[in-house]
Amino acid sequence: MRMLDIIDAKRGGDALSEEQIRFFVDGYTAGDIPDYQASALLMAIWFNGMNSEETRELTMAMLESGDRLDLGDIPGIKVDKHSTGGVGDKVSIPLAPLVASLGIVVPMISGRGLGYTGGTLDKLEAIPGYTVEIEEDAFKEQLRNVGCIIAGTTGNIAPADKKIYALRDVTDTVDSIPLIAGSIMSKKIASGTDALVMDVKTGSGAFMKREEDAIALAEALVAIGKGVGMNAMAVISDMNQPLGKAIGNALEIEESIRLLRGEGPDDLLDLTLTIGSQMVVMAGKATSLDEARGMLEAKISDGSALERFRMMIEAQGGDGRVIDDPTIMPQASRHIEFVADRSGVIASMKADDLGIASMLLGGGRSTKDDRLDYAVGLTLDRKIGDPVTQGDRILTIHANRDDVSDVERLLREAIVIGDHAEPLTLIHRVIA
Amino acid sequence: MRMLDIIDAKRGGDALSEEQIRFFVDGYTAGDIPDYQASALLMAIWFNGMNSEETRELTMAMLESGDRLDLGDIPGIKVDKHSTGGVGDKVSIPLAPLVASLGIVVPMISGRGLGYTGGTLDKLEAIPGYTVEIEEDAFKEQLRNVGCIIAGTTGNIAPADKKIYALRDVTDTVDSIPLIAGSIMSKKIASGTDALVMDVKTGSGAFMKREEDAIALAEALVAIGKGVGMNAMAVISDMNQPLGKAIGNALEIEESIRLLRGEGPDDLLDLTLTIGSQMVVMAGKATSLDEARGMLEAKISDGSALERFRMMIEAQGGDGRVIDDPTIMPQASRHIEFVADRSGVIASMKADDLGIASMLLGGGRSTKDDRLDYAVGLTLDRKIGDPVTQGDRILTIHANRDDVSDVERLLREAIVIGDHAEPLTLIHRVIA
Repeated sequence: MRMLDIIDAKRGGDALSEEQIRFFVDGYTAGDIPDYQASALLMAIWFNGMNSEETRELTMAMLESGDRLDLGDIPGIKVDKHSTGGVGDKVSIPLAPLVASLGIVVPMISGRGLGYTGGTLDKLEAIPGYTVEIEEDAFKEQLRNVGCIIAGTTGNIAPADKKIYALRDVTDTVDSIPLIAGSIMSKKIASGTDALVMDVKTGSGAFMKREEDAIALAEALVAIGKGVGMNAMAVISDMNQPLGKAIGNALEIEESIRLLRGEGPDDLLDLTLTIGSQMVVMAGKATSLDEARGMLEAKISDGSALERFRMMIEAQGGDGRVIDDPTIMPQASRHIEFVADRSGVIASMKADDLGIASMLLGGGRSTKDDRLDYAVGLTLDRKIGDPVTQGDRILTIHANRDDVSDVERLLREAIVIGDHAEPLTLIHRVIA
Repeated sequence: MRMLDIIDAKRGGDALSEEQIRFFVDGYTAGDIPDYQASALLMAIWFNGMNSEETRELTMAMLESGDRLDLGDIPGIKVDKHSTGGVGDKVSIPLAPLVASLGIVVPMISGRGLGYTGGTLDKLEAIPGYTVEIEEDAFKEQLRNVGCIIAGTTGNIAPADKKIYALRDVTDTVDSIPLIAGSIMSKKIASGTDALVMDVKTGSGAFMKREEDAIALAEALVAIGKGVGMNAMAVISDMNQPLGKAIGNALEIEESIRLLRGEGPDDLLDLTLTIGSQMVVMAGKATSLDEARGMLEAKISDGSALERFRMMIEAQGGDGRVIDDPTIMPQASRHIEFVADRSGVIASMKADDLGIASMLLGGGRSTKDDRLDYAVGLTLDRKIGDPVTQGDRILTIHANRDDVSDVERLLREAIVIGDHAEPLTLIHRVIA
């Protein structure tokens, strides 16, 4: 078998065989296939795609390149959640303790942020002492004692994906549905979960700008999961504006705490409960989504979800006092109001540009080696559809530098005040 | 400027700017752009092509990566010829001395063979002593004294093309019209010729299997040449069967000598005179193609073209006695007849497989490091459309090994005897 023939087959629009896909994945991981041939194949896949059979084989080959976490000795159905990433998307953080407060095991393996979408692990590290690097034994121990964990990958999970993803990142082949699906699912299957809810974002601030692409990705993800006996489903949710009102690491932890105190905001609560209800039903703790939603709301009202969050933080070495006093996290030295320059209604609020604004302040990484400033970011007072009068505050910039004119310029372009706004739907559809 | 944005633009179907193309060519040649990003861009170009403006910029950027040969101090119009390569295509070899015998300067820079098409330089090296590595001063001196030369590139011609071609070869991005056109023309412009006739092959044994692709390539080549003030035109010629009757290095030199003795074969003579006539008119030595053809025929009849070939060989260190006695070149130890296994007419004779047969005998290279056996090859007694009776000799295998059953099996599949044959046209069209 020759790599050149595999490239040629895909370039010509043929489906690759299981043997061809394994030859590529194993050979590239072992270093036998050079980067330049791998990147030519990835670009041919970007153009010609992969059918569901090929996507499944790619996933399995990447999965089998490394170890699998065996959670079989932990009682109960393990339920995980994954998001394709969006600005202000901190759903995982309140969701894991909320669902775990119903006695459901939530083993959440998460990632760091690159570019304008923040990473769940980065946000959690804003809490003093919180560690995301957990060995396998400690990982399982925490699941038994607390019922939930949010950590980085343990051990040697899908090394093929790690190597291929790094190449995609520098060869403009990230946004390919089969490649994204294979990357997500190889890691999720390896993490040993029984059930999985995926939040596939669509809109201007998402990878999948067009809803049809988001649906295609969601269908690919669900099909792969079901193919290996996992109970998998997906929610398509809106990313035409940031989710919630906080963007930035410590600011999003604070908003997560507020959510579990019952203080909203509405869109974040709605999406958290929508995904959470699916997880509760999947775990067999409720028979309908309505019943599940009611159970979750009760755990917010009685404070037990918030208490579970404190337990999770402390189990991972974090300072649990953050639950009562979020100001123990890094705080910005300057707070600059960004006000409306005319009266009207917020017509658009480009999520990706708001994410970039937070990144420019130091809250995100533009390269893998950037260090984060946990304190900085944005807190929004207005969102799309809200009326404003000239001079009203639209948001507050949390900064640790004096001149934020670059951020202000970007925000002025990203936030359009007009005479009317198109209504947005948060949950576009559910794919089971 | 970032390479990732250039890949993204081409992947999305945009035309690249002059600055983007130069950034890629210069950066890749200098080693600043890694192979894996270059191959991703090449694959995106393979899919989305390049418009004529982009192709011209690519050519100029590769041209300007190296030196240009200045033939301005050699009197007369310099006329060159280039073929995209075919099996049995030895036209350049008799053509250069034939045209030069009319007092026209023919500075021919040629290449070696890889795969099933032979290389002009390899064939000439079958002549004892013939050298193709000529320094610039000697190159010009020979043009002044003999009027023609067939040699390899002198000096530092288009190093960017050399590096990009090597990458295309291992990433399945060779057969892209703008990339082929840029590669050929950057070298031809650098070689300092005033006029150029290109022989673009089409058919089963050619790069361009479909005539429409051959026409597109010919048009791209001619447009680039004219864009820099070169008098350029192209002939589209047939490569559904080998050209002439000899395949193999020494065998093709012998056939070239016979051609200049007036002994045909017909198809090789026709194509040589067709291309040669265009060159004579371009050089201003005749006003019509008919007149030019008559002048060339006269130079064959009176022996002066053959004499010019001897002069060229001797000027390049070769043994001129080969003109009178081709057996001073290496000769095969075994001659095996390949006969018809049924009666009928030769319906097809796949040129590429016959080229591979010669390669398997040792006459061609499958990798760059293979050493050639100049003696081996095939000589054809029959071609497409010829009637055969069972047991008739179709061709002779010239071999230096005992067991040629692999070659025989290949030939039995490649040569189909049927009840009728589709007529073939040698010259499909002329593009000026």
